[in-house]
Amino acid sequence: MDFYAEPLARLIEKFASLPGIGGKTAKRLAFHVLSLSVEQAQDFADTIVNAKTGMKFCSICQNMTDGDVCVICGDDRREKSVVCVVENPGDVIAMEQTGEYKGYYHVLHGAISPMDGVNPSDIKIAELLTRLSDDTVKEVIMATNPNIEGEATAMYISKLIKPLGVKVTRIAHGVPVGADLEYADKVTLTMALEGRREM
Amino acid sequence: MDFYAEPLARLIEKFASLPGIGGKTAKRLAFHVLSLSVEQAQDFADTIVNAKTGMKFCSICQNMTDGDVCVICGDDRREKSVVCVVENPGDVIAMEQTGEYKGYYHVLHGAISPMDGVNPSDIKIAELLTRLSDDTVKEVIMATNPNIEGEATAMYISKLIKPLGVKVTRIAHGVPVGADLEYADKVTLTMALEGRREM
Repeated sequence: MDFYAEPLARLIEKFASLPGIGGKTAKRLAFHVLSLSVEQAQDFADTIVNAKTGMKFCSICQNMTDGDVCVICGDDRREKSVVCVVENPGDVIAMEQTGEYKGYYHVLHGAISPMDGVNPSDIKIAELLTRLSDDTVKEVIMATNPNIEGEATAMYISKLIKPLGVKVTRIAHGVPVGADLEYADKVTLTMALEGRREM
Repeated sequence: MDFYAEPLARLIEKFASLPGIGGKTAKRLAFHVLSLSVEQAQDFADTIVNAKTGMKFCSICQNMTDGDVCVICGDDRREKSVVCVVENPGDVIAMEQTGEYKGYYHVLHGAISPMDGVNPSDIKIAELLTRLSDDTVKEVIMATNPNIEGEATAMYISKLIKPLGVKVTRIAHGVPVGADLEYADKVTLTMALEGRREM
């Protein structure tokens, strides 16, 4: 790596520290930054800092927002009785893009994973329980990821919520639409069989 | 895109403007930035600006460097009679990584491409000719990319250099090592045949 002058080497290193960016891509991105004008590079840098400092947690659902309350929580026309619990802000977008869900959300910012040192107190579970303290919410949909951590988190939270008299549901597991049955893994296929519905 | 608060939307847009970064990757990178600490985000931003403002053209070979002269041009032990002409700083790294080349470089910062509005005066050809004015350099190796623009640039420059009495060579075209002959395109295979050498 000693072919690169230090400021460039550091930028390549920064890009390579981003998730999913390998060494070659990091080099390409760094050289691209060098090809920008000084103003464009400054603008890029400012955007990074602004995004980080300008975004905070929505005081209700804990999603990222630039105000006190996010646009979804600020929308009165949504169904107040349902809260969908997801791991990350990106999951909210994914759910919203279906256009099917009209309730509110709660973003945990992670999943319980003792292996990675993530305990229940490290994610936004307490904030969820606070929201359920009045009787507005009737159903909590656990939409954590369909992996070990996501399942464990869903299980953990459902045990906390059920005593409050709130219905807890889990999104369906099964074969993805458009996928090839031949390539579905055994666990998914078993889940798909278990969750079969009458036609 | 209206699910994103404005500072985040702008950051996603910035990432998506980088070469080879699509919408999904841009979202992932932007959310990653939000997961950094404010100090880390500030550090990332500073690195971008420092790389842009701290790097300039080497006064000899036009490669990017943080000093007046790059490490390669500053190395006296290299072979002074050979200059390898490449399109981009990344190409210098690629050549250096072979460990085989011991001469100096000249970085054009582009290739002649009238279609894209890149004329001979837009790339560092004049600087190359200046370097050849004394009689130190005996051979110029044209290592521009093996595509239309690279070939045209090599041809153009070789016509300018030959009258100066300097030998101009072109890197060999042929089948890449480790590749499958079956999948080599016709032009490459033709070039490989033409360039065959006795064993």
